[in-house]
Amino acid sequence: MRYKAVVSYDGTDYAGFQSQRNAVGIQDIIEKAFRLMTQTDIRIHGAGRTDKGVHAKGQVFHFDSDLPLTSETWVRGVNGRLPNGIRIRSVHEVHARFHARHDAKEKIYRYVISKGEGTPFSNRYEVHVKDIDTDVVRAVLPVFEGTHDFRGFTKLVKGKDTVRTIRSLTLKETRTHHVFTFRGQSFLRYMVRSIMGTIIAIGTGQADPGLAREILETKDRSLTPPTAEARGLFLERIIY
Amino acid sequence: MRYKAVVSYDGTDYAGFQSQRNAVGIQDIIEKAFRLMTQTDIRIHGAGRTDKGVHAKGQVFHFDSDLPLTSETWVRGVNGRLPNGIRIRSVHEVHARFHARHDAKEKIYRYVISKGEGTPFSNRYEVHVKDIDTDVVRAVLPVFEGTHDFRGFTKLVKGKDTVRTIRSLTLKETRTHHVFTFRGQSFLRYMVRSIMGTIIAIGTGQADPGLAREILETKDRSLTPPTAEARGLFLERIIY
Repeated sequence: MRYKAVVSYDGTDYAGFQSQRNAVGIQDIIEKAFRLMTQTDIRIHGAGRTDKGVHAKGQVFHFDSDLPLTSETWVRGVNGRLPNGIRIRSVHEVHARFHARHDAKEKIYRYVISKGEGTPFSNRYEVHVKDIDTDVVRAVLPVFEGTHDFRGFTKLVKGKDTVRTIRSLTLKETRTHHVFTFRGQSFLRYMVRSIMGTIIAIGTGQADPGLAREILETKDRSLTPPTAEARGLFLERIIY
Repeated sequence: MRYKAVVSYDGTDYAGFQSQRNAVGIQDIIEKAFRLMTQTDIRIHGAGRTDKGVHAKGQVFHFDSDLPLTSETWVRGVNGRLPNGIRIRSVHEVHARFHARHDAKEKIYRYVISKGEGTPFSNRYEVHVKDIDTDVVRAVLPVFEGTHDFRGFTKLVKGKDTVRTIRSLTLKETRTHHVFTFRGQSFLRYMVRSIMGTIIAIGTGQADPGLAREILETKDRSLTPPTAEARGLFLERIIY
């Protein structure tokens, strides 16, 4: 049987979702929990990597197992062997050709900025930036929407296709926070955080509002402001 | 000049507030930040230890320095050299004989229990216990209030005075949480968590309501249920 699982995690202490050669990925921890629970080797296939330090509320993976267990047994059994910072939210049986990465229709990322200084309890999950000019930012967001070559907003890997489509990029402002929401089928490595770094630079007056379009047109990464910190980024949900 | 400082911290990754022989205490990290900032050795004196893994919203310490800096300069300078999980909230000049520990009039601790299962983002700061009978618990709380020999609720150190006074112990219930608040001039080591362990055992029906009084009367620690986890406990505030 093939199963689809949704997992949340605090990415602070891990080298990203994917297994790494020299560092512990969240995938390694989950596979170990499966092994402890079932005494069998279960390989999990994530919908995509998240980078070192990035969090997830709804990362998805699939796995195969012949064990005839209920959803609830899977969830409890695995969670009982996972650290507190990683929680399986659901496990459901799916058709045999379901693929967590190939079948993903849309990914939703959220970037959280606090207006006030953080506390030791919030600092893991948000970045503090004061005095963001929301009018300036709102005017720039549409520049990123649509299909573009985002080569200036990623770590260049030669020969790789760097064209992506951002279906929407919105800002929700509350009394205490600025929350940015990115929707698209897929994103390049560091793309969301690199765009956020540019938005922050523009919103705080350190860069000209025209810079966004300039980087998209020239694809010149040397123009791109520093990448925003991982701790503000959440993989919120994946739609199938 | 003598200064009084208030500090918040996420205790998860530290061996408690106090400097330890073989482990890093929060005090060590703060003293290092002072050294990096001032190029002088500044020894800080905490109002008390907090145990490994316990958090603080308002721990207090005092220190001496001849540097004529403003409160704001102290706060910014030290915070700039501290990890995100430790934040100085305020620094104020006090009279030369102020002592963080000796002058403390009341300490307020809070213990946070979530009714629902936690998320990876809340699990560091609360303990999950379902089905606590609040009527049973509310009837037991007054048993702990007042002056008692709390020897059954601490790690016994021979010859040490184990009589303490709990001025109040209250429960506030919300839709999602049970929050217990302890007020007293001082507490023994593990005392709050050991009392919480007993309250949880009674509230979930694993122990008889009479057990609270029995431990106080017999002072027999072998009767005491397991100590509640550190991650639910916050040193909330110290009143001078």
